Amino acid sequence: MSTFQKKLEQYADVALQKGINIQEGQGIIINAPIEAADFVHILSAKAYGRGAKDVHVQWGDNVLTYMKMKHAADEVLENFPRWRAEGLEEMAKDGYSVVNVYGPDPDLLKDVDSERVAKANKASAEALTTYRDYIMEDKITWTIVAFPHPDWAKKLFPNEPVASAQDKLWEQIFHITRIDKEDPMKAWDEHNENLRKARELLNDKQFKKLHYKAPGTELTIELPKNHIWAGGAAESVKGVKFNPNMPTEEVFTMPHKYGVNGTVRSTMPFNYDGNLIENFSLTFEEGKVVDYKAESGEESLKYLLETDEGAKRLGEVALVPVESPISESGHVFYNTLFDENASCHIALGKAYPTNVQKGSEMSADERDKNGVNDSLVHEDFMIGSAELDIDGEREDGTFEPVFRNGSWAGDFRK
Amino acid sequence: MSTFQKKLEQYADVALQKGINIQEGQGIIINAPIEAADFVHILSAKAYGRGAKDVHVQWGDNVLTYMKMKHAADEVLENFPRWRAEGLEEMAKDGYSVVNVYGPDPDLLKDVDSERVAKANKASAEALTTYRDYIMEDKITWTIVAFPHPDWAKKLFPNEPVASAQDKLWEQIFHITRIDKEDPMKAWDEHNENLRKARELLNDKQFKKLHYKAPGTELTIELPKNHIWAGGAAESVKGVKFNPNMPTEEVFTMPHKYGVNGTVRSTMPFNYDGNLIENFSLTFEEGKVVDYKAESGEESLKYLLETDEGAKRLGEVALVPVESPISESGHVFYNTLFDENASCHIALGKAYPTNVQKGSEMSADERDKNGVNDSLVHEDFMIGSAELDIDGEREDGTFEPVFRNGSWAGDFRK
Repeated sequence: MSTFQKKLEQYADVALQKGINIQEGQGIIINAPIEAADFVHILSAKAYGRGAKDVHVQWGDNVLTYMKMKHAADEVLENFPRWRAEGLEEMAKDGYSVVNVYGPDPDLLKDVDSERVAKANKASAEALTTYRDYIMEDKITWTIVAFPHPDWAKKLFPNEPVASAQDKLWEQIFHITRIDKEDPMKAWDEHNENLRKARELLNDKQFKKLHYKAPGTELTIELPKNHIWAGGAAESVKGVKFNPNMPTEEVFTMPHKYGVNGTVRSTMPFNYDGNLIENFSLTFEEGKVVDYKAESGEESLKYLLETDEGAKRLGEVALVPVESPISESGHVFYNTLFDENASCHIALGKAYPTNVQKGSEMSADERDKNGVNDSLVHEDFMIGSAELDIDGEREDGTFEPVFRNGSWAGDFRK
Repeated sequence: MSTFQKKLEQYADVALQKGINIQEGQGIIINAPIEAADFVHILSAKAYGRGAKDVHVQWGDNVLTYMKMKHAADEVLENFPRWRAEGLEEMAKDGYSVVNVYGPDPDLLKDVDSERVAKANKASAEALTTYRDYIMEDKITWTIVAFPHPDWAKKLFPNEPVASAQDKLWEQIFHITRIDKEDPMKAWDEHNENLRKARELLNDKQFKKLHYKAPGTELTIELPKNHIWAGGAAESVKGVKFNPNMPTEEVFTMPHKYGVNGTVRSTMPFNYDGNLIENFSLTFEEGKVVDYKAESGEESLKYLLETDEGAKRLGEVALVPVESPISESGHVFYNTLFDENASCHIALGKAYPTNVQKGSEMSADERDKNGVNDSLVHEDFMIGSAELDIDGEREDGTFEPVFRNGSWAGDFRK
């Protein structure tokens, strides 16, 4: 077996055992581009090998997605088929885990009318509300793993032939997901342990607010009472430990939906469903975006914010030091899975109910009162840099440093 | 554009215009293996170009099919998801046409337990009953076109590298589907006209019975009163002319389900869902198979016959002279779409209700009384050869030759 093949097998093992933590007798859903067939076959063989009862693959295809967004009738874009949502709900209800093999083309939809894309995204988000709850409330285990799709690889290494661009990106992926370590499983356990320590310290502190300061950024984020910082391995409602993102370098919780004030400037391009939004800033008052501008992709940003009321408020605040392995690679990946783990970020849209005590059991009203945001979308964007300082404000109004120059500070410094 | 690329484009044009005869504003479903992505992209672009409102692709993958048949839990194989059937029914109801891009691996499931395959096939056939009616009663337009899947191409040209095996098979496909003619569209019109003449002559004759004689074969097939011979272009209930099979060289009607007697011997291997059944013979009494044997694949044949009551009776009788272009190629294609158009054949299972007057309007009881067979399956197998003679028996008991030495005879000789 070649070294590459061996790493690919290890990557699949890590995705199944540390990612979704596959259990005997369960089913799995794999979402993957057709170009990832070889890797999907390895995942599938290993899943059956570990006693999976079913592997259901939903193939994606950039060319067909582009053509549909460009040419399909409005009625088709605006009506996400109910049977597709039902299929996902049925499998989720039956305890299927989800592996997303992810490597989108950042420029896929750049010449498609943003309004059409927004309509299609909204229709699918609405149709998939029930399914999404299974994911966002950890009722099932799920993971997102990267795949060097040729279109993505070419974006990162435009001067390389596509095969060698893919090879280079595989190398980055293996490095960033710790597959090049002596014992990748053990490396993941150690990494999860480090993230657990960081989140527990933050949970003990129970800051009332976080104050962000950086060029173009002066932002205050209130945190709900009894907020919970998460990071590293999550735990499903059935008690199965899993890693929703591979890589993951963040600890994160939810902002109070009515408690965000000030202005924040993005520090990396934000790939919103095949469109890049770059050099943008958002101004918040009482949690809501009241002003925004973007050097490019402003139209896409507008449609994102207009999706629904919750799209104008925050659903996540995440801390990542600039010395994360991804950040150190020096690349912009044009891929949220990677870029969000290279940089402090916040997300517009739905909050993870698991980020506040008893959040999953709350009614919609109770969630609102506790500051838990709801929306059809959840879109991360990057605000971290080596110039970012963050202070935590305690219940008594005193401050302590959390980040200085983009890295953990004070008590948080390891 | 290369010659090959030009032919591929023409092939897509013929599939869309002569195959499903695509109409502006309709949707289409494409069933295709992931290896056919390039051809699917061409079909999709041309479909949107002709005003399709939607192109819905259902990707197939031999490796995943094999793994599922081999390893999935029984409960998974035995329960075809209702939501998948609903999706197809919904699209068919909305007038979607279906393009099947077809190139199965004849040996795909040869080491899988036949009972598991049979169970899975039965579950999907049962779940897809309503959808199948849209197809078999021509409520929507549909077509099957061949694609040289690497696994199929390697079976035909085992000593060639896979790319050149595919090239050789493309050449055969282009020849057999008339894409290498000066004007393929016109060639299809002429061909349809020839098949129309043959079927009209047979419809005028209204034979009571067909008598088959060949080595190992002595079979009498009664035809229902008011049976209809079809062949070449069909017409959907909405009046759209289309070609369900490309290639198509047959004229066909339905046997009377209670009127088949004698023994018939197969003349070519029969690929039943990834298993080859070879050198087999069936003995009928009053329409029903009462004895069978096969040199190989007997187990698969057994499970096919045991699917349901109708699987033991015939649903189609088709005439193809040995000088058809496919037959003249001298190849066995291990692919029903091709082989059935090289040879006289009959089918076990469901009859096309359109093969008898008012068949589509009849109740289940009326269909039974009129000799229209029903089943979850419809499986063609080849019985033609240069040694086959067929006589038609008129209402008055007199005989006339229809085939001699595998070719049209008497009035049917052009």
